[in-house]
Amino acid sequence: MRRFYGWATPNSQRVSIMLEELGLTYAVTPVNIRARAQFAPEILALNPYGKIPILEEDGAPPLFESGAILLHLAEAHGRFLPAAGPARGAALSWLMVVLTSLGPFTGQAHHWTELAPEKPEAARRHTVALVARAYAVLETRLGASPFLAGDEYGLADIAAYPWIARHGWAEQRLEDFPALARWFAMVGARPAVQRGMQVPAGARLE
Amino acid sequence: MRRFYGWATPNSQRVSIMLEELGLTYAVTPVNIRARAQFAPEILALNPYGKIPILEEDGAPPLFESGAILLHLAEAHGRFLPAAGPARGAALSWLMVVLTSLGPFTGQAHHWTELAPEKPEAARRHTVALVARAYAVLETRLGASPFLAGDEYGLADIAAYPWIARHGWAEQRLEDFPALARWFAMVGARPAVQRGMQVPAGARLE
Repeated sequence: MRRFYGWATPNSQRVSIMLEELGLTYAVTPVNIRARAQFAPEILALNPYGKIPILEEDGAPPLFESGAILLHLAEAHGRFLPAAGPARGAALSWLMVVLTSLGPFTGQAHHWTELAPEKPEAARRHTVALVARAYAVLETRLGASPFLAGDEYGLADIAAYPWIARHGWAEQRLEDFPALARWFAMVGARPAVQRGMQVPAGARLE
Repeated sequence: MRRFYGWATPNSQRVSIMLEELGLTYAVTPVNIRARAQFAPEILALNPYGKIPILEEDGAPPLFESGAILLHLAEAHGRFLPAAGPARGAALSWLMVVLTSLGPFTGQAHHWTELAPEKPEAARRHTVALVARAYAVLETRLGASPFLAGDEYGLADIAAYPWIARHGWAEQRLEDFPALARWFAMVGARPAVQRGMQVPAGARLE
């Protein structure tokens, strides 16, 4: 038994894309973050941080944090991450750029461009610039390499895709990043990515 | 030959602590980020993102991003991270809380409490609250478990320590988090942690 707790958020979609890429069977519990369902006692019992995604698998404690779940699934199934050697190092470096810069910075920019009741211009400008810097690094990389970690599609691409899909949250335009736009179209054409982006069915961020 | 590029920053100190914990021999190239040395062509050639830490090891492409370097070193030397199974999953979940919340949020709070030329109160308050939420989660965890991943000291502790050392950047007081304070004293008593916090010799954040 495998159960995925998620919503229509980029971090959640990283995991649903990965589950679809691996062809795994999983049950879905929708956790509507706009209704603050991630703070319900039964979710906090799984992840004390009160965040989704969460993955439960038989016989193991619940896994939380999208990056941890991606690494776990890649290692458990031997796919989308080199098992050892220099190729693994490069894949981990690019995965971490995505996990620790692209995601958190885009999330912060979204706060200051859309969500915050008060939106100081200095906060908007600063966080949008952090995202623009990350986009420039990804653009250079994808101008030299088809995928983030190199020749093979992998975890870094899966982790980046649902955040790049929200480029508008950080006032970025894919037209300004042609290599990133090419990569985005190529990754977005994968059926597993398309399916993963629709999990949980009917969920949307209001 | 192993060469570490770093400065007196929390992300850099994660790696120097790990190198010391493993008892490895390494050369050090100081990269003074206040002098913008991370954007020198020879550093950008190693990490196109223009950030430290970076680790070079014979026969492998340079590794960048502190989280990637920690995972690489743990796996290469078989220490500070369970090799497989449920214990590895828990260790990865807590490592990711530290890498993707504690670090980026404390860095953002530091920007709005000290570094930014203009410091909107809404930005200070928001980022300090994000850090406070992460501290509360760590406090609960460390009230139930001696180390972040469980009974054993490991990567999540190494990744967290130099950021918790900067609690003042996010206007946090360790007195308000007794379990975290106990953990901080215990980790800080380790000789390897004390040595790692002093690398590169003579570096300081102005």
